[in-house]
Amino acid sequence: MFEYELPDKKNFDSFCGYHQTWQGQPDSDLTQTGPGTFCGEYLRRYWHPIFIAGELADRPRLIKILGEELVLFRDQSGQYGLVHKKCPHRRASLEFGRCEKQGIRCCYHGWVFDVDGTILDIPGEPEDSKSAFNAKANIRLGAYPVREYKGLLFAYLGPPSERPAFPMYDTFDIEGMTMTPYMVPFKCNWIQVLDAIVDPVHTAFLHQSQFSDGFGKMGEIAFYERQKIRFLGTASRRVADNVWVRVNELILPNFTQSGAAFATDGTTVRFFGRSAFTRWVVPIDDEHCAAYAWGNFGERGDPLEWNTLEGMQMIEQGEVVERSYEERQRRPGDIEAVEGMGAISDHEKEYLVAGDRGVAMYRRQIKKLCRNLRKGRRLPQPTDLAEGIIPTYGSDTVLLRPQVPDQDDRTLLQTTNDQVMDILFSSDDFADGSRDDHIINRLKGLG
Amino acid sequence: MFEYELPDKKNFDSFCGYHQTWQGQPDSDLTQTGPGTFCGEYLRRYWHPIFIAGELADRPRLIKILGEELVLFRDQSGQYGLVHKKCPHRRASLEFGRCEKQGIRCCYHGWVFDVDGTILDIPGEPEDSKSAFNAKANIRLGAYPVREYKGLLFAYLGPPSERPAFPMYDTFDIEGMTMTPYMVPFKCNWIQVLDAIVDPVHTAFLHQSQFSDGFGKMGEIAFYERQKIRFLGTASRRVADNVWVRVNELILPNFTQSGAAFATDGTTVRFFGRSAFTRWVVPIDDEHCAAYAWGNFGERGDPLEWNTLEGMQMIEQGEVVERSYEERQRRPGDIEAVEGMGAISDHEKEYLVAGDRGVAMYRRQIKKLCRNLRKGRRLPQPTDLAEGIIPTYGSDTVLLRPQVPDQDDRTLLQTTNDQVMDILFSSDDFADGSRDDHIINRLKGLG
Amino acid sequence: MFEYELPDKKNFDSFCGYHQTWQGQPDSDLTQTGPGTFCGEYLRRYWHPIFIAGELADRPRLIKILGEELVLFRDQSGQYGLVHKKCPHRRASLEFGRCEKQGIRCCYHGWVFDVDGTILDIPGEPEDSKSAFNAKANIRLGAYPVREYKGLLFAYLGPPSERPAFPMYDTFDIEGMTMTPYMVPFKCNWIQVLDAIVDPVHTAFLHQSQFSDGFGKMGEIAFYERQKIRFLGTASRRVADNVWVRVNELILPNFTQSGAAFATDGTTVRFFGRSAFTRWVVPIDDEHCAAYAWGNFGERGDPLEWNTLEGMQMIEQGEVVERSYEERQRRPGDIEAVEGMGAISDHEKEYLVAGDRGVAMYRRQIKKLCRNLRKGRRLPQPTDLAEGIIPTYGSDTVLLRPQVPDQDDRTLLQTTNDQVMDILFSSDDFADGSRDDHIINRLKGLG
Repeated sequence: MFEYELPDKKNFDSFCGYHQTWQGQPDSDLTQTGPGTFCGEYLRRYWHPIFIAGELADRPRLIKILGEELVLFRDQSGQYGLVHKKCPHRRASLEFGRCEKQGIRCCYHGWVFDVDGTILDIPGEPEDSKSAFNAKANIRLGAYPVREYKGLLFAYLGPPSERPAFPMYDTFDIEGMTMTPYMVPFKCNWIQVLDAIVDPVHTAFLHQSQFSDGFGKMGEIAFYERQKIRFLGTASRRVADNVWVRVNELILPNFTQSGAAFATDGTTVRFFGRSAFTRWVVPIDDEHCAAYAWGNFGERGDPLEWNTLEGMQMIEQGEVVERSYEERQRRPGDIEAVEGMGAISDHEKEYLVAGDRGVAMYRRQIKKLCRNLRKGRRLPQPTDLAEGIIPTYGSDTVLLRPQVPDQDDRTLLQTTNDQVMDILFSSDDFADGSRDDHIINRLKGLG
Repeated sequence: MFEYELPDKKNFDSFCGYHQTWQGQPDSDLTQTGPGTFCGEYLRRYWHPIFIAGELADRPRLIKILGEELVLFRDQSGQYGLVHKKCPHRRASLEFGRCEKQGIRCCYHGWVFDVDGTILDIPGEPEDSKSAFNAKANIRLGAYPVREYKGLLFAYLGPPSERPAFPMYDTFDIEGMTMTPYMVPFKCNWIQVLDAIVDPVHTAFLHQSQFSDGFGKMGEIAFYERQKIRFLGTASRRVADNVWVRVNELILPNFTQSGAAFATDGTTVRFFGRSAFTRWVVPIDDEHCAAYAWGNFGERGDPLEWNTLEGMQMIEQGEVVERSYEERQRRPGDIEAVEGMGAISDHEKEYLVAGDRGVAMYRRQIKKLCRNLRKGRRLPQPTDLAEGIIPTYGSDTVLLRPQVPDQDDRTLLQTTNDQVMDILFSSDDFADGSRDDHIINRLKGLG
Repeated sequence: MFEYELPDKKNFDSFCGYHQTWQGQPDSDLTQTGPGTFCGEYLRRYWHPIFIAGELADRPRLIKILGEELVLFRDQSGQYGLVHKKCPHRRASLEFGRCEKQGIRCCYHGWVFDVDGTILDIPGEPEDSKSAFNAKANIRLGAYPVREYKGLLFAYLGPPSERPAFPMYDTFDIEGMTMTPYMVPFKCNWIQVLDAIVDPVHTAFLHQSQFSDGFGKMGEIAFYERQKIRFLGTASRRVADNVWVRVNELILPNFTQSGAAFATDGTTVRFFGRSAFTRWVVPIDDEHCAAYAWGNFGERGDPLEWNTLEGMQMIEQGEVVERSYEERQRRPGDIEAVEGMGAISDHEKEYLVAGDRGVAMYRRQIKKLCRNLRKGRRLPQPTDLAEGIIPTYGSDTVLLRPQVPDQDDRTLLQTTNDQVMDILFSSDDFADGSRDDHIINRLKGLG
């Protein structure tokens, strides 16, 4: 499946650098996210987190999302506004505007706009001004709907007529879980960051020294594609007499969950522990993206003592963010791996192997959905996955399963992957609340 | 006049950001100022200020004007030179040259050039060198004439055969006025900065809290176009029993004057107080410009205590220049308004209303003059406006004119605008010296 | 020879800046050095220094040479590796890789590559992985051979089948000479830096105040082209009763030597003192280059007290590198001269005179060799210049030769140039070791 055309003989000599092109082209179908682009249009059919609510004060913020320069604000009545950067009158930036009782006022000539883009006031014109009347009748500030949820602000940048319901995942509300919003910026294309979630191989190498010895074990991996937009990559590792099954999860276009970062190292049994983060990878522009997420802390998430800035950076990328170049070389984390590819990676020069099957699967599906959108077909939404709360799978399970003498342990690990996933998949129909108990009980039956 | 085509219905929904393009094209006829461009050629038919004389020491300065990289220097005999950046021999930068008794010496091979571009010496060649002889006969360093006036250095970058006389305005010499040269840089196209001078509406909003309560009143505005290249925007404001008429002035291509910044708030009568600045808006390149000016201090200008760096920054743009981003958001000045539009504003997306009539008028005229130049027609010069000293109008007049019961005050303000301007316009023929007295006496007759 | 077409009359007026274009085009045949370019292909047929060995520790370095981003490292067994920046698997940067016992390990998925580009290990795949087998059979990391010599690391970036022998010059091994490797970066195209070596005129101006009074004398210059790839520029200066002959040398493509910087000022006799540096000018990319060299200290080089960082910067460019802009204006060195031309000089606007003959000669020859390469002809190598050790000429000789009354001293200086060079040229056949003695003895006979 990942066949590569036979190389020219001279490309295979010792020291063949001269004969090999060292740069290729990005897969621009995936990497371009601005208005009107192939993938940008696809992404504009979903809600995306765009800011940490607690960091928005009483003044507007200039932000960039999907290549658009926008101004985010909260007016004095508490409405959130996300509008095009420039005033439609004479193009002053609304980042210098003033939050009013209702809407935002441009600094230059005092025009006031409501959060939905309506012109509320043109104070520089007389009351009987025909041109002010025309302006209100003919133009409107570009605006997008915003909603706050547990400290994250989400926006929808697509056509109003296609605005989807806001999807509610099971992990949005787990008893005893403390959810802390965070944002980590990446100086590279979003696909480079998204890739890692369905790449259980990199965990064993990039993160081997960061969390626990168990992380450094390669284990047996498996990939699952379900319900068109859900991709799972699992790794079963042998840790002494235990088998540790870690489940990473991607729901298209960019929702991700995994196992825990700190809560387990495979040495103690654990049943359906939940994801270190509930997270979206959001393009800022084609050369920047951000991971917006809640870090999840508590009995079923990561330990509460990691509910710190440093803890969330570790959860996000395996290392703290601000480090010297030499430190980054000596202990690279995800940021070094993905930013090191350059602002936009040259996918043309990749050579994918079996461990990259998850990456290949989800990329192909995104491209297929983009094509479907072009053809006018309806896109699948996360809310299609279930009625009501959407069950998710990102988790850790550690079972007591000693190695069987004279039997290939790989087979055992592979079987465990399938058994655990089978339990997760077959529990979707259990009503909210009872699903987790049901899963845990069945997993206990395995171990 | 400023009609806008009817918008597509979907561009007028609530939250219609998706359906609106958030970026448009600049009006490149106005914004491009480099050699050979539509507007650049037009600007090259006038003298422009390019440096503060007192800041030029005994070493050359690398500057940029109208998109050209140039070296400005003063040789030891006091001649000013403004020459192309690079030595015509081997292209070393003359910014590393040495000011000689006559001309400038290149650091690399010691060639010496006079301020008019003549090669004075090629010391690396023998006296009988044929190639040195040829060089002197065949090449010349590109140079422009420079003149100093009251601490500002002016240059003419056009064809030598079309060099116009240096225009002398009445405000260059007012009894008792202290004139202090200043320069404030802007990181945006010159048109964005020039616009504001014929925009009396923005004053009431952007500057409402900066100078006085009176500034924040909208008043009645009027626009006047005279003698092809002179544009005036006046605002009559009601301040208790007074009417305050402020006159802003633009003489094409880029000479600007206004009323005072600090000298009046409309509460005291004042007759023909003069401009806070005598000022030119000069393109550095298409993404940068500078305001070169004298701040005018004294009885008929702004109070002498504002003759400070801070005072001149306030006069120029309503706030001091160096402030934190948050301070700039909370109290934006002209720099925030015009730089916030981006390096080159996208005029295509503007929607002009009645208050923008001044902006529309002068832009149209510049484009017409550019077209005339292309057709080989002579361009009007400021020196066409008068024989000898050129009368100007930028000023403040405050008249005691209480509101009339049962009469629309707007009509009174509009009438006052016209009466004041009529006096100013009809006094042009009075000989130097007597004009101001004549105007003041007639204004007193009004009040 | 350097005729210039007669200028348009209006380009020759006083203040004719408007009529002269102030920018031209670079000679891109010389300035472009990336893969596949005219000159880039030529340069890829030679060894170039790329790093100071002593500054390479146990972690990889990201470097750029000839426009290629590469990673340099030394594995734990002491092998040097120079490889393409990005891992051929998923494009992580190998600058974050780990130096292993053999080769380098990618941080992302742990692939290991040998210094010649062979894949040694793909640990993320099972042992029986077909895709790992295919990867090893089909792809290879681009790599280049590296060799260390006296503290400099050299690499060859061309086709493996054309790799030339590493040339050994006589100055690599002079008895009593201390050779200290240095690197000075330039923010401009390599040709701008290379030009100066065959430009004995600039020395008299740019460096007049830096080393000694003698440097500031113009003297008589002469140029010699020998053996297709060797270019010499000599300057004979009158210093009291002495004649000081300084010989600068360029061996194509980029090997340079000169006289001493500090060892002589012409006031004391000296016979065949050797070059201040043994130096290569190496393109980093088209807008940056680096001078890699040994500074040569001892009896026959520069005084040992200049064997310091500052001393080597002086030797390289006449001034220390880190200085304020004003200091650089007041005492410009080579960096100011060559960087002041801009990142890539606009050769189209040069006007060459007799003193630029050396520059014209070597540039023409490089372009001819580039054309020959395109035609499939073999390029001359430095190793063609001699069997075994290659004799070089960069040197200082100071002879006691008082001015002859009633005789034009210029003729005496010119004759001395020729006599000295004749001795140097005619000594090539003397076996290693005896050549220098032979030259010195014959020079003593002249003085």
